[in-house]
Amino acid sequence: MPRYWWVNHKQTVRQEVDGQYLWSPKMARGKDGARRNVFYDNMRRATPGDLVLSYANGQIGFVGRIAEFAFTAPKPSEFGKTGANWSDEGWLLPVFWVPLEHPIRPRNFLDALAPLLPSRYSPIRPETGMGNQGVYLAEIPEGVYREVAARVSFSHEALRQGGANSLTYGNVRDWIEEQMVLRLERDPHLDQTTKRSVIQARRGQGQFRTSVGAIEPACRVTGVTNPSLLIASHIKPWRVCRSAEERLDGMNGLMLTPDVDLLFDRGFITFEDSGRTRTSERIDSGDLRRLGLQQLTLDDLGFSEVSAPWETRAFAPRQREYLAYHRSEVFVS
Amino acid sequence: MPRYWWVNHKQTVRQEVDGQYLWSPKMARGKDGARRNVFYDNMRRATPGDLVLSYANGQIGFVGRIAEFAFTAPKPSEFGKTGANWSDEGWLLPVFWVPLEHPIRPRNFLDALAPLLPSRYSPIRPETGMGNQGVYLAEIPEGVYREVAARVSFSHEALRQGGANSLTYGNVRDWIEEQMVLRLERDPHLDQTTKRSVIQARRGQGQFRTSVGAIEPACRVTGVTNPSLLIASHIKPWRVCRSAEERLDGMNGLMLTPDVDLLFDRGFITFEDSGRTRTSERIDSGDLRRLGLQQLTLDDLGFSEVSAPWETRAFAPRQREYLAYHRSEVFVS
Repeated sequence: MPRYWWVNHKQTVRQEVDGQYLWSPKMARGKDGARRNVFYDNMRRATPGDLVLSYANGQIGFVGRIAEFAFTAPKPSEFGKTGANWSDEGWLLPVFWVPLEHPIRPRNFLDALAPLLPSRYSPIRPETGMGNQGVYLAEIPEGVYREVAARVSFSHEALRQGGANSLTYGNVRDWIEEQMVLRLERDPHLDQTTKRSVIQARRGQGQFRTSVGAIEPACRVTGVTNPSLLIASHIKPWRVCRSAEERLDGMNGLMLTPDVDLLFDRGFITFEDSGRTRTSERIDSGDLRRLGLQQLTLDDLGFSEVSAPWETRAFAPRQREYLAYHRSEVFVS
Repeated sequence: MPRYWWVNHKQTVRQEVDGQYLWSPKMARGKDGARRNVFYDNMRRATPGDLVLSYANGQIGFVGRIAEFAFTAPKPSEFGKTGANWSDEGWLLPVFWVPLEHPIRPRNFLDALAPLLPSRYSPIRPETGMGNQGVYLAEIPEGVYREVAARVSFSHEALRQGGANSLTYGNVRDWIEEQMVLRLERDPHLDQTTKRSVIQARRGQGQFRTSVGAIEPACRVTGVTNPSLLIASHIKPWRVCRSAEERLDGMNGLMLTPDVDLLFDRGFITFEDSGRTRTSERIDSGDLRRLGLQQLTLDDLGFSEVSAPWETRAFAPRQREYLAYHRSEVFVS
């Protein structure tokens, strides 16, 4: 069953619809510092196939289908000054947006809508139909979506089919990373050799790979040691590293076989400091078995079935700092 | 046991030593058309760990260690006019080169060398010590290598260790592909949208991925259908495609899980037209089992142990054209 969402994004609607995504900071900034915010946390709850209404300037203009789970990504550069107060790191949620033939104003059918709005975290005021300040991505009852959908025209076919394969995690990640490479190439503080190494590190090659290989000679899940079959994977992703040092740090890497690299990069698995693996409930155990990774499937208590000796080699202190980031910001729990 | 090689590369020694590789065409061009050539075929026989002597202008100046199996790659652009008569596609063999402290002339110790030279395919003339015309990469007996090694100084440590992780297939492939991207971006015959699609196709993203997914919904080895776990892999590699059409053709792709993608890209497995898999003897069966790909290990007769139903779905005619290329030019038999 899909869930239904509503986003108030007056400031960024153009960029987010054009770019086929939603982006939010992870934490809200208040007078008393950063704190969690239910509307930003909702970014991680949205699941591929869920539907979302885009609201800005008093009207709903687009309906979207969530294409992928949210993942950690830097603030899109096209936000410009709009996002100046936001942190540089947040959740990016790929959404396939379809325009309504005619935008619709919730204020104009508030009698039908108001009784269905949630009492808590409602995206609009039931009295006025205007957006609630401070709400970003809010969950709405199916009924609210139905009331809107019954009054508008859009291509249901496009919403269901279009871009089915284009808004992949890989596509979006590559697009972000290419922006970072362009920025990197213009950086006056880095010499050419470092730039080259940092760009090679993006694909797990060059100096970064050599450094990681010296620390981690084998894949911690499969035990493979043949270098031809190993990928040097960043623990803290390349796209969100703060500096060239972090991107080139051998302590920020693991040698993993390709299937394991994908699962780790995508946040479907992570590691405890002890070396033990953790598997997300979002990854299907049948898929893990088809990948030949039975050792990662969960038993009824949520633990991996098999614990191989190489899994339990504890990590070094500097690896643990990067792993703490991976567990909290990449792992899809 | 390593094997020993000798390369006569007067015309390209600078480029090949600087670039850490050897490159040759695949076929020799004679008056009667293209034909096989033992010295070019030797490129594929060289195995990681083998040692090679670099001979040019009457002297041996470098000793190299083969870093990876050869793979199909376009002619390096830095050859310039030198390679003008050669085809644009050949074998690239990553070699880690170490300079001799003082180059040595075989002519000066021909008495010791001549009796050890092979009677057939000798890289130099036993009478004069000068290079044999038409010889490129020749196998030499261990004794020839020893006679040379006993008379020269070089860093054995560098030869053994240096660049152990830097001359990977991935590094070299990325370097080649980056050259292709630069050339592509300058191509006046392609519009921006096509350029973008072709560059996305390099990583199996964008329009190419959508086209492949419509033809091949599942991995033919593992049966996985979850798009998040599938890579759109080129059958004929992106780096050697002849046109944007080939690079974007959905018939030139397979959806593969990451481990299978790596094995296929590297030429350790391929497919028959019938859909049956073939496994190279160069890939270790223990590694295949650790990757969870027991179905690809070979029995004593050289066949895969398990044949799953999805393996035996025959390919379409246009897929077969690309597969024929993969079997003859990519598969490491």
